[in-house]
Amino acid sequence: MGTEEVKLYGITLSPFVLRVEWALKLKHIEYEYVTEDLKNKSPQLLQYNPVEKKVPVLVHNGKPICESTLILEYIHEVWKNGCPLLPSDPHQKAVARFWSKFAEEKCLYSSFAVMSNVGEELKKAVEEFRHNLKTLEGYLEGKKFFGGDMIGMVDIVAGWIPCWVGMIEGLVSMTIVDEEYLPRIKAWIHDILELDLVKQTMPPLDKVEAHMRAIRETVLAAKSVSTLN
Amino acid sequence: MGTEEVKLYGITLSPFVLRVEWALKLKHIEYEYVTEDLKNKSPQLLQYNPVEKKVPVLVHNGKPICESTLILEYIHEVWKNGCPLLPSDPHQKAVARFWSKFAEEKCLYSSFAVMSNVGEELKKAVEEFRHNLKTLEGYLEGKKFFGGDMIGMVDIVAGWIPCWVGMIEGLVSMTIVDEEYLPRIKAWIHDILELDLVKQTMPPLDKVEAHMRAIRETVLAAKSVSTLN
Repeated sequence: MGTEEVKLYGITLSPFVLRVEWALKLKHIEYEYVTEDLKNKSPQLLQYNPVEKKVPVLVHNGKPICESTLILEYIHEVWKNGCPLLPSDPHQKAVARFWSKFAEEKCLYSSFAVMSNVGEELKKAVEEFRHNLKTLEGYLEGKKFFGGDMIGMVDIVAGWIPCWVGMIEGLVSMTIVDEEYLPRIKAWIHDILELDLVKQTMPPLDKVEAHMRAIRETVLAAKSVSTLN
Repeated sequence: MGTEEVKLYGITLSPFVLRVEWALKLKHIEYEYVTEDLKNKSPQLLQYNPVEKKVPVLVHNGKPICESTLILEYIHEVWKNGCPLLPSDPHQKAVARFWSKFAEEKCLYSSFAVMSNVGEELKKAVEEFRHNLKTLEGYLEGKKFFGGDMIGMVDIVAGWIPCWVGMIEGLVSMTIVDEEYLPRIKAWIHDILELDLVKQTMPPLDKVEAHMRAIRETVLAAKSVSTLN
């Protein structure tokens, strides 16, 4: 693999970029991390992702791949060494993709609702987020990770949960993942945070927290203005 | 393939179910179509898709696969005969998946905005929908179909456009796809509608139009009530 050139365009605080870093580490792929400034995007980023103009972008031997979940599919297909990100059986693969999509579209989006509400609406949003995590938990039954003995696509797509959920709990002063209702998710969070590749790539948590607090304050201020109008 | 059992749980008016029908026809796969009643879902549907409880569900030799785009990936992987739904080159495959995602998340969602607005908001929504179609059109350059000489994943995911967009234009009394701004999309719509598999699976258009008109009226009525409150 001496002639491979792998570059990852990213920003430190993005959970979407973090997914790609985990997958690259899991596959022992050497890569260059190019830090983007989203307020002043580089010509390379605009050239590689002209439609979305977003990170992450993986550039493999000069060819760009955009969108974190599609980058994970690409890594799975191109680098056969190390742990596979998806099962080889087509039906099991479809099931893993289903839960990745669920973790993205249901769990992630319901965490946004938690971050952008207060009072009764916050309580409802937390309830829905917990309900979605409970549904996701079903796919963990009898396994350490969603991927089995090692992490796979679903663990990686849901990987923002172990890193971010404690901070969300702190910001809204409510418990989301508790031992009684979500015992397997709680154990999974613990096991994910123990992994070397997770420790190696963990962003500075004080910066993540300040960033999330600022997002929450901006969203709440905007909602408060729109209520006044 | 004599021992294969393939069942598709669907409803006649769903563009998501239509995707799966196109893919099955393209691969010459024999299947049984099981018509669901969404107001009274069958025990089979609830058993096969307990999380989303939605159609389409493909059941292959007793194993269910849910979510239309994941079913397309499954069909591509399991049935190697006939036209492939995705390119074999991993980078080209990632590009096709990118445009499928774009057709779903940008084009389809912006058509919903067209369907649920009037006046200035409708004009803005039509402009955004047309802009997204223009972006999608870039991927058609030099090709008859997004998939090349034959339809592939992107054509199938975007396949609601040829079937539905004329009706949307009629419902909102505005032109969306015109020769001048979207010449390749216009030619593609024509070519898609000429395909035998599309003709064979086209739902009864009077029922689709009545269904869409009812949806538009319900959405507009709900918006009008929420403005009064």
